Amino acid sequence: MNVLKQVTQISHLRDARKRLPEPVGFVPTMGYLHAGHLSLVKRAREEAASVVVSIFVNPTQFAPTDDLEAYPRDLERDTALLQEAGVDLLWLPTPEVMYPPDFQTWVNVESLTQPLEGTKRPGHFRGVTTVVTKLFNAVQPQMAFFGQKDAQQAAVIRQMVKDLNMPIEIFVEPIVREPDGLAMSSRNTYLNPKERQAALCLYRALEAAQTTYQAGQTNAESLRETMRTIIHAEPLAELEYVSCADYDTLVELETVKGKSLLSMAVRIGKTRLIDNHVLEAV
Amino acid sequence: MNVLKQVTQISHLRDARKRLPEPVGFVPTMGYLHAGHLSLVKRAREEAASVVVSIFVNPTQFAPTDDLEAYPRDLERDTALLQEAGVDLLWLPTPEVMYPPDFQTWVNVESLTQPLEGTKRPGHFRGVTTVVTKLFNAVQPQMAFFGQKDAQQAAVIRQMVKDLNMPIEIFVEPIVREPDGLAMSSRNTYLNPKERQAALCLYRALEAAQTTYQAGQTNAESLRETMRTIIHAEPLAELEYVSCADYDTLVELETVKGKSLLSMAVRIGKTRLIDNHVLEAV
Repeated sequence: MNVLKQVTQISHLRDARKRLPEPVGFVPTMGYLHAGHLSLVKRAREEAASVVVSIFVNPTQFAPTDDLEAYPRDLERDTALLQEAGVDLLWLPTPEVMYPPDFQTWVNVESLTQPLEGTKRPGHFRGVTTVVTKLFNAVQPQMAFFGQKDAQQAAVIRQMVKDLNMPIEIFVEPIVREPDGLAMSSRNTYLNPKERQAALCLYRALEAAQTTYQAGQTNAESLRETMRTIIHAEPLAELEYVSCADYDTLVELETVKGKSLLSMAVRIGKTRLIDNHVLEAV
Repeated sequence: MNVLKQVTQISHLRDARKRLPEPVGFVPTMGYLHAGHLSLVKRAREEAASVVVSIFVNPTQFAPTDDLEAYPRDLERDTALLQEAGVDLLWLPTPEVMYPPDFQTWVNVESLTQPLEGTKRPGHFRGVTTVVTKLFNAVQPQMAFFGQKDAQQAAVIRQMVKDLNMPIEIFVEPIVREPDGLAMSSRNTYLNPKERQAALCLYRALEAAQTTYQAGQTNAESLRETMRTIIHAEPLAELEYVSCADYDTLVELETVKGKSLLSMAVRIGKTRLIDNHVLEAV
């Protein structure tokens, strides 16, 4: 069994990285790991010769009104899960390591970050792309693994890697769900039992729209309306957006033709949840 | 003698790069090479096991009013010089390779790009840092070599590499000058004989300020005034800025204490020239 080595300083990371067999697979996380994260680690183990995981609750992707302080943390449990999953190296950078006082360089993806999450969380993706660039440059993986749960993030990262010629293959892995359909998320821990039940409306809405599409409905506004109706029927849910967009450009569609993305953000009480389904071209 | 291999496509670059002995030293240029560029290649040959040079007149660092179209080019001569200088690999990317139609990712260094060149050339450094990131990610050098002639650019690149954890050592090499003191620049080719003579005022102004400093004058405004006076005395010269700033932060000084930078931008006719002297701490 692998022994999980842990490092904090970048110099220690680089030393440990040099000794890892290549190709190196990398799974960046914010910790409080669930089965979704572990599916990324599992895929990385299959594809790569070594697996590096980072846990870093990145302050620059949270707005002042976001849940940075409240974001759940359980390093002891995370470490045990990663050890068991066969991870070789765990990097635990601190905000001081990542953002020294004179830090002033940002990576920004322009068009793809504008719609959807971008309208509700200005600056969020700039924080994501900047920290992922830093993580990539420090770890120097040949492959990196992201979840389809954060569909826009995955699209933004793919675009960044292509635009900046980063020598890294990006894998985007399917959403892992609870038995009743709720997408795994570290933020699910915020939900009380009533809210947990109400949160199923996201999956129900996506399923309904997908079923309608499979039955022949290709009018995108009609699919969005199907999703809206189901969310509005749930008293504890407050809809932020529903979208039926091109899978790669995230531009809203009139008619579903090629690979497309149904997605939404919904507040259940104080908790903001996102979910999505990919519609494959028929 | 090395045979200079030339590539255009990134995939060909990556293939050729894999076969180079490490560490790899990289000299990014815009071509029309002079002794300043060749001093960077020479240093790279001393420090690294292989040397890669790129020639790319990067459109995103030119403003619409800049001299992108007029920028001098002589690939045949450049290639001969690089062959003779013992370069292993020459990358000649095209604008189409570097900036496909859906390109939308930018790297931006914030504070350091604001003063000096930043006030006169908005967007210039964003183009520089973005293309240098792309070149670095494609070439994957262990070392990269820049000229002190573009002092602010060197400071911006150093900051970017540090902020984004790029695994690259940055070397900044001294300005190479013509026998009469004019700093080598591809843009010197724009100067007619009268302008070429007038252009010496930059070096004279810097020398005068440095001599004054060495004689004990540490008041920064007095040093700036010395430089202004000499530039204003040259009828063909139009001063854009003079600066006496901290070497690392580029913040204008009141009193010269540590390592500092005397710099200026001057128009001689239609040609914009920059030059600088480093004041070492005494």
